[in-house]
Amino acid sequence: MNDLPDPRSVCAFLEKFQQEATEALERLELETGFRRDPWNHPDGSRGETRVLEGGETFEKAGVNFSDVSGTALPGAATERHPELAGQPFAAMGVSIVAHPRNPYVPTAHCNVRFFSARTADGVDRWWFGGGFDLTPYYGFEEDARHWHAMARAACASFGDEVYPSFKQWCDRYFYLPHRDETRGIGGLFFDDLNEWGFEKTFGFMRAVAEHFLKGYLPIVERRRETPWGERERAFQKYRRGRYAEFNLLYDRGTLFGLQNSRRAESILMSLPPDCGWIYDYRPEPGSPESELTERFLGARDWV
Amino acid sequence: MNDLPDPRSVCAFLEKFQQEATEALERLELETGFRRDPWNHPDGSRGETRVLEGGETFEKAGVNFSDVSGTALPGAATERHPELAGQPFAAMGVSIVAHPRNPYVPTAHCNVRFFSARTADGVDRWWFGGGFDLTPYYGFEEDARHWHAMARAACASFGDEVYPSFKQWCDRYFYLPHRDETRGIGGLFFDDLNEWGFEKTFGFMRAVAEHFLKGYLPIVERRRETPWGERERAFQKYRRGRYAEFNLLYDRGTLFGLQNSRRAESILMSLPPDCGWIYDYRPEPGSPESELTERFLGARDWV
Repeated sequence: MNDLPDPRSVCAFLEKFQQEATEALERLELETGFRRDPWNHPDGSRGETRVLEGGETFEKAGVNFSDVSGTALPGAATERHPELAGQPFAAMGVSIVAHPRNPYVPTAHCNVRFFSARTADGVDRWWFGGGFDLTPYYGFEEDARHWHAMARAACASFGDEVYPSFKQWCDRYFYLPHRDETRGIGGLFFDDLNEWGFEKTFGFMRAVAEHFLKGYLPIVERRRETPWGERERAFQKYRRGRYAEFNLLYDRGTLFGLQNSRRAESILMSLPPDCGWIYDYRPEPGSPESELTERFLGARDWV
Repeated sequence: MNDLPDPRSVCAFLEKFQQEATEALERLELETGFRRDPWNHPDGSRGETRVLEGGETFEKAGVNFSDVSGTALPGAATERHPELAGQPFAAMGVSIVAHPRNPYVPTAHCNVRFFSARTADGVDRWWFGGGFDLTPYYGFEEDARHWHAMARAACASFGDEVYPSFKQWCDRYFYLPHRDETRGIGGLFFDDLNEWGFEKTFGFMRAVAEHFLKGYLPIVERRRETPWGERERAFQKYRRGRYAEFNLLYDRGTLFGLQNSRRAESILMSLPPDCGWIYDYRPEPGSPESELTERFLGARDWV
């Protein structure tokens, strides 16, 4: 089962997904498009970073494709296979982060990736990983239920235990221990996935990618005209600080990217465009800002 | 030499230094003072977090004292004594971070700390650590020379090799490998220091604390009336993102604090009040913004 499959079909899908996501987000803008930044590294690694900044809908969004290889797999890359650390590897993936301008529109993240590596004994291994999660600034039950309904739909044909299992993994992963707080309302997270065999697992990755767009786009459409002012902006900037904390302190994708850096700027495109830290800020009890942590952050069943 | 000295004199000095630094920074404000937040933990750890926000001179500043003990020393706390990891310990220190409003005034940081721990064999160990470093947004040779002159003066009576050695340690420590860039123009950094014996090493810590204020206050006075506008503000916000990157990705004090967290908010007071990440920003060649990285960041001899 763990013989190395041909990664070209995965690569072709990832490039197509990058293009679809780019176009889907650009359709939500009037005048701003993604800057496209293709890059090649002498070791054969390559990618295309696409970043949109200063849009009407998105203050900053990134849709990155990369296809990298290396001589020594960083420890951050595989949780369950420590024997592969330091071994030759290849990794390809698409990462999407969208930071909307309107504080009523949540920040969204999606990543799908395919890894292959060879053990010191010459055995080839491969696995898929990825998922998506949503980080609202103001909580809406309707949005949370839709988001998790799409997460469940992505998993539906792969087994009844898949959604609950990867939903819980997401809640555990996007978690700030020093705050005892989840990053947002979660979604799906999976890693080191190969036990279904290549074709089925690849199909699961495609379903995750597709349902990310089905989950996010309607929420953006629904909330982006909501009026907002300085109060909402200040709270959005404050909460974006948490996003930066998570990515820089804990996110394995970010740490893997920086340890194995081809382009730090491509990795750090996920960081927010405008944020700040306020000492010991506590929202007024009963306010919508207080409701976010009380009712939306923390693992909760949405569907 | 490494028998456990009485830490009460160190504690008394640290509390006095906290008060001096608080008053020195408050003298640069017209209307804003530090909020004082004393705290106690059931295990006997205690501290006082002091944060000033929204000042005329300082957009955010923190002057924190803490005196904590624990049953298991985190790995981040000692570089040269891995045998102490997981052992009972006590740590006391003062940390200062000042984020000025005016982009022509540099951000400054100082930390002085005293650790003691007991090995599994029951042997008591102690050491001092600390230092200070300066992070300008716009570079001024005059300020850099003054800052390093004060760093050298702090070391002068402790041996000729002390300033060059701890200056280089600072350049190596406050370094962002994924950017190949220092955090700022450096200063002093030292850790695990005990080979001079207790009295002399404690004296060195006092000299470091004193020269931090002698280094920073004249620079603030000199630059805080310099006119600035949107351009300088945007660059300051951008560069503050680097400060957040360093603290969350690499700073041992931050990681130690969060691993051994009594109060995450006290640890994260160092993070900037208003910052942001711009994709692949490159200042115009020859501009003052470009001069910062070209002439000021990176290890350089200033005195």
